[in-house]
This record gives sequence, structure tokens and C-alpha cells, in this order.
Amino acid sequence: MTEHSRDDAVARDAADPLGHLPSLFVRDDPDLVYLDGNSLGMLPHRTRERLADVVTREWGGEGVRGWHHWFELPAQVGDRLGTGLLGAAAGQVLVTDSITVNLFKLVTAAVTRDAARTVIVSDQRSFPTDRYVVEGVADAVGASVRWVESDPVDGVSVDQVRSALGGDVAVVALQHVDYRSGVIADVRAVNDVVHAAGALALWDLAHSAGSVPVELDAWQVDLAVGCTYKYLNAGPGAPGFLFVRRGLQGQLGNPIRGWWAQPEPFEMDAPFAPAADLSRFLTGTQSVLGMSAVDESAAMLVEVGIDALRRRSQQLVGYLVELALARLQPLGFTLRSPADAERRGGHIVLAHPDAATIGAALVQKANVVPDVRPPDLIRLSPAPSSSSFVEVWEGVDRIAALVASGGYRGTAVRRVT
Amino acid sequence: MTEHSRDDAVARDAADPLGHLPSLFVRDDPDLVYLDGNSLGMLPHRTRERLADVVTREWGGEGVRGWHHWFELPAQVGDRLGTGLLGAAAGQVLVTDSITVNLFKLVTAAVTRDAARTVIVSDQRSFPTDRYVVEGVADAVGASVRWVESDPVDGVSVDQVRSALGGDVAVVALQHVDYRSGVIADVRAVNDVVHAAGALALWDLAHSAGSVPVELDAWQVDLAVGCTYKYLNAGPGAPGFLFVRRGLQGQLGNPIRGWWAQPEPFEMDAPFAPAADLSRFLTGTQSVLGMSAVDESAAMLVEVGIDALRRRSQQLVGYLVELALARLQPLGFTLRSPADAERRGGHIVLAHPDAATIGAALVQKANVVPDVRPPDLIRLSPAPSSSSFVEVWEGVDRIAALVASGGYRGTAVRRVT
Repeated sequence: MTEHSRDDAVARDAADPLGHLPSLFVRDDPDLVYLDGNSLGMLPHRTRERLADVVTREWGGEGVRGWHHWFELPAQVGDRLGTGLLGAAAGQVLVTDSITVNLFKLVTAAVTRDAARTVIVSDQRSFPTDRYVVEGVADAVGASVRWVESDPVDGVSVDQVRSALGGDVAVVALQHVDYRSGVIADVRAVNDVVHAAGALALWDLAHSAGSVPVELDAWQVDLAVGCTYKYLNAGPGAPGFLFVRRGLQGQLGNPIRGWWAQPEPFEMDAPFAPAADLSRFLTGTQSVLGMSAVDESAAMLVEVGIDALRRRSQQLVGYLVELALARLQPLGFTLRSPADAERRGGHIVLAHPDAATIGAALVQKANVVPDVRPPDLIRLSPAPSSSSFVEVWEGVDRIAALVASGGYRGTAVRRVT
Repeated sequence: MTEHSRDDAVARDAADPLGHLPSLFVRDDPDLVYLDGNSLGMLPHRTRERLADVVTREWGGEGVRGWHHWFELPAQVGDRLGTGLLGAAAGQVLVTDSITVNLFKLVTAAVTRDAARTVIVSDQRSFPTDRYVVEGVADAVGASVRWVESDPVDGVSVDQVRSALGGDVAVVALQHVDYRSGVIADVRAVNDVVHAAGALALWDLAHSAGSVPVELDAWQVDLAVGCTYKYLNAGPGAPGFLFVRRGLQGQLGNPIRGWWAQPEPFEMDAPFAPAADLSRFLTGTQSVLGMSAVDESAAMLVEVGIDALRRRSQQLVGYLVELALARLQPLGFTLRSPADAERRGGHIVLAHPDAATIGAALVQKANVVPDVRPPDLIRLSPAPSSSSFVEVWEGVDRIAALVASGGYRGTAVRRVT
């Protein structure tokens, strides 16, 4: 059995104590190589069953009476995520709205808290929504954004953040795992300098939740947002989540004043008075299907344990990097993720001048699903729960064959992967 | 066959050309009397099937490749609602976010459009979210709310609106069908006085969409929001919708600047520049399950036709009023909805001093689902698509029996119906 052979990958799967995890997912096409769990996680069998039960037995059978228990879902499922995967004591995480709307709520709350602090620090290489939302909030409330520019591979440094800070900064909003390079920020160290300047630290956990250990309490995070359709496997457009440190909850206001933020929403003549606790960050009626999917898929991950998932993620990603350096680098690919495995999240990114057409051809001709990020990046993620070593091997093998043959040339590029 | 007998109700169902409609819904408990379609509509068989297909074949089978078609859902399903049920030409309705978030977006857009207009006119008897959101927006942008107080039964009058108007008013935000009395506002007449004052007219269609004809274009509505879990039968917490008149789309900004509001969201290095069209009112990634449920359930209603649904609604509600006056009024109930059938939407409201315990006992002891609105109101709605004359008869019969016997006394009241 030679190094980098398919047999070697098969042997790695056979020896993996978590090698059964991929069988927990719906996978009707055994030939499919799905390396895009960082964009949309796969469907767990148990989540399919839970959704069918919520639709038929809960909505169909209980009707409006279901709100007796549905009403608790944002906080209940929030606690499952918070205590199970994010290192947050209960009462600090809500599953609600979308990550974009949650970011809007929390950034607005942070920058309107103290009239003397009117600057938002953020990274001009962040995911578009992160940049757009902070700019929009700044324009709306008469604040401004002070940009740092993170390194394309190594991400944001503590020094960069420190030099952007000052007594005028209300909040520093950054990504935990960079959406392109996959580099993991040193949250604890950044928070220390942010707090020393009297500002709040807000972290976007979109690319870390469910794949990388997060310790919101231990790292003294103030605010966080995330989505559930990536490594949390809750389905396309499933709700986002938000975290507000307990000690801050009474000090921050939700700019979107919906009826669910009232302690007694069914006292319908009452004037608005926000709940004293986290529920003030709710808005209106939330998706019961979405919250139920998060609940079920997150429960599956909690049972495995985030540390075990991280170990498996590092093994799969490490193997992917090893194969990519051996077989794809000679074909013109360059690794644009950290070389150090400890600094990498659940995905890597490879640059190639023909990334767009290669990505399109992988989907259309090779049954490999990556994603493409303009202008020249291909992201690959073997999700720690749903992928296998053989899948990683197959992915690299098909990419190598496609690029070596030139068979990707001329493939029509579509907007989405 | 005597008047107001069960046999008479059976005969009405038999003679109804749309008497088959209730069979299109999941109803595993044949004894259930569900008169709360105005709060949460029932589950159509075809929507159950569509959701199973979206979960298994689309998410499970296509994975992230599903975004090729999912990305179009907000506008596609919006057009289905707009052109099929709301009298809006294509390109003016989006299914997205929640009604609360949509209201926030549109009210903020309207009140920040012209610096000389800093007043929002609204009804202090509106649904809580409507009141809370306009107050929150006013506080945030330095505007103010000028309240009218609608009549508890007859709703808001044109004169009330006229007297609240002035050159300082940016937008008038009102309910099309009042969430308590069910009275239908004269949208066209109100809009005329609003427009004469140079303000914009925003209507909340939560209690009208799918039950009452809406003519957004013909009535010259500027802005509207609504939800899809009531008469549109899209399930608990399904997404909201918003309408922006075409001519206004380029003039209004979305305060929540998400990446879906960019014309090219996948050009991820681009600075924010909102789409020229309606898609500027999108935020982030939307619930594919939710939008698909709206699509399927709305398609069912479009096939029946809103005028036919309205006729059936008027027959069922008229029959309910007739029975209530004959059998419930003598037991201490008072009708708090308009006497004129043309002015009533899809639900009515009855006042009774013991409404809270009667409502609780109906659910817990009589298998009748109404809803209760403090302090003394019970709302009843025979949904035009899922209810029958026999169901209305059974509901009134069980209410009468429960109240006549005093058997409701002492029933524990829970927060939700």
C-alpha cells in the first residue's frame, strides 16, 4: 500500500474510530464528492426524520397549540448550541432571524451604547455581509468604520487590531475563521486588547461553529453571531444565532422592536418594555422548521463532541493538504491557507488562475462539489461529520485528472458553485 | 331540517361547490374544530409533500448546488403571491425575513427618505409588533409617531387619518384587516388622503393576505408587509413578505445592508452598491423550506382564486355570526366585529367577561381551537380553504354547551391559546 494511494485512504477510514459518522447523512449518490460542507452542510438522516415529524405531527396535528412549546425554541436551541458547542453558559445564545439580521442588531446595539464611542473596527477582507452591515449601521447612526486589512493567509493580527483601537471605538467586529483562507483568529488575545481599550468584541462564528472549538465564556467574548447551515447541518437558509454576554444583556437595546422582545408578548395592549434578559434580542415569529432542524443536527454533533470533531477535521484537512501539495501544486495550484494545522479551520483554499472554470467543470463533469470565490480561489472542506478519507482522496484525484487533461477548459461558469 | 340544526350545516357543505377544499388539508383528528386559521393556517397535503421533497431531494440530493434555483425563490414566490393574490404586477413582492423585520426595513426606509418628513402616523390599537417597530424606528432616527386611535369595531376612518396628516408626515402605517375586530380598512380612500399630503401609505396585510382580495396596484399602495403562516398556510414561522411599489424602489434604502441586496452577491470584493430593483430589500440567506412552503400553499390558493375564497369566507363567517347571535349572545357573548359582512375579514371576535378561561377550556376540554386576546376577546375564524359549515356549527355548539354548563370555570389559562 503506497503513500497517497486510494488503498491508503480506505485504510485510514477503516482505522478511524469516528469512521461511521458519514453514514449518519443522506447520500443517495455514492459517487458524489461533497467538499462544500463549509457552505451548506449535508442532511443528517435524523434531521430529515425530525423535520417530517415537525411538519406532520406538530404543525399538522397540533396546529396553533404547538406554540406552547415552539415559543421556547429560540432559547432552548440556543442553549443547546451555546452549552454544547460554543462554550457559553445557558441564557446567552438565541437561535433567531438570520446571521445578517443578527449582526445588524448587535452592531447597532454596540455602537449606540455610549455616545462617546462612534467607531466600529472591522476587517475590509471580511465576508461581504459583515462589511456591508457595519457600513450601513455606521451611516445610519452617524458612526464610522475604521478598517483593518487582514493578511490573505494569516488573517488579522493582534497588532493590527491594537493600532486601530482608541477611546472612540465602540466595537470590534471580526471573523473567527476567515471565510477564504480558513485561518483561525486568536480570539482571546484580540479580546484582551479590545477590552483594554474599553470596546466590545463581536465575533462572526459562521465558519467555526460546529467545526472548531469555541469558548465564548472563557475567551470573554462580548457578542457573537453565526449561521447554522454550514457545519451545523441545519439546511439551506436555516436560522442564525446570536450571543450576548450575560452582563451586557441589560445594557444593550435591540433596534428592531418586535413583540417577541416583550416579556409578556400576549399582553397586547402593553407599551413596549424590553425583557431584562436575552429575549430582548428576539424580533417576531421564528421559523419552527428551521429551529427544529438546528436542534436536531446540533444534538448529533454534541453527542460526538466538538473536540472529537475538531480532531477528525484536522486529520481530514491535513490529509487534504498533504494530497494537494503532492498532486495539485505541480498543476499550478497554490495553497492560500496556513501551513500550520493548528491555525486552520475546517476548510482550505487553493488558488489557480483558472479557478472559475475548474470549479464549474468539477461540478458539471466530475461530480465533485467545491466552491469558488472570485477571482481565483477554490475552497475545499471535508466536513468533520459527513466526509471520509476516501472522499478527500477521490476529490483530489478527480481535480488532478481534470486539470492535467485540460478537460475543464471552456466550461460555462454559473453564479453559484 | 330546522334552521341552525347540524343537518342544515351538513346540507350547506353538500351544496357548496368548494366543499372539497377542507379535504386538501391534513386533519388526522376528525373531531377537531379548528377556528384559528387566522393565527396559524392548517397543513395542506401538497405542502407536506413539497417540504419532504425539498428536504430529501433538494437539500439531501443537490446540496449546495440547489442554490442555482433557490436563489430565485424570494422573487419567484413573491411574484406568485403578488400576481396571484395581492393584485401586484411582477417585481414588487419579495418573500423574505419576517413581517417584523420587513416592517422595520420599510418604515425606516420611508422615514429617512425626506429630511423634512419626520413623522410616522400609525394606529395605537394596531398589533403590538406594528406599534413597537414604528416607535423603535422613530427613536432610532430622531422621528416621532403620531397616533390615531381606531374604533375597536369599525377600525380607522379616513377622517382620523386626514386629521393626523401634515407636511411633516413621511408614512402612514396601518393594518388592512384589524387583528382584533377583523374590520377591513378602506385602503383606497385612506391612500387618497395620504397621497394628497405627500406621504407614503404602508399596509400590514397579515390578516388579509389569502382571505380578502388585495389590489396593491389598483389601490395605489406604496409599501406593504405581511406574513404567510395565517391564511397562506405556509407553516409556523414561515417567512414574511414585503411589497414596494415599482416607482419607489430606487428611492428607498434598506437599513439592513446584507449581501443579497447586491446585484452580484458573489463578487465578494465589491463595495456595497444596492441593486436598482426590489432585491435591494433582501438581506442575507433565506429559509428555503419556508419559501418553498409559501410557494406550494399559495399555488393552491391561486388555483382556487381569491374571489372564490372570499365568497366562501363570507359564507362561513356569515354563518358563524348568525349562529353566534342566536346561540352565544344569550350566554353573555357580544359581537365586536362589524355587522356588515362587506366590512368583515376572515375572522370575527366575541367579547365575554370569562374569555380567558372559556378559551382555555375550549382547547383543553372541548377540542375546539379559537384564540384569545386579552382582556376579554375570543377570535374565531373558519378559514376559507380548510373549514366547513359543519365545523362552524360544531364550534358554536360546543362553545354554547361549555358556557351554558359553566364547565369552563377554573380551567388553567396558558400563555398561548
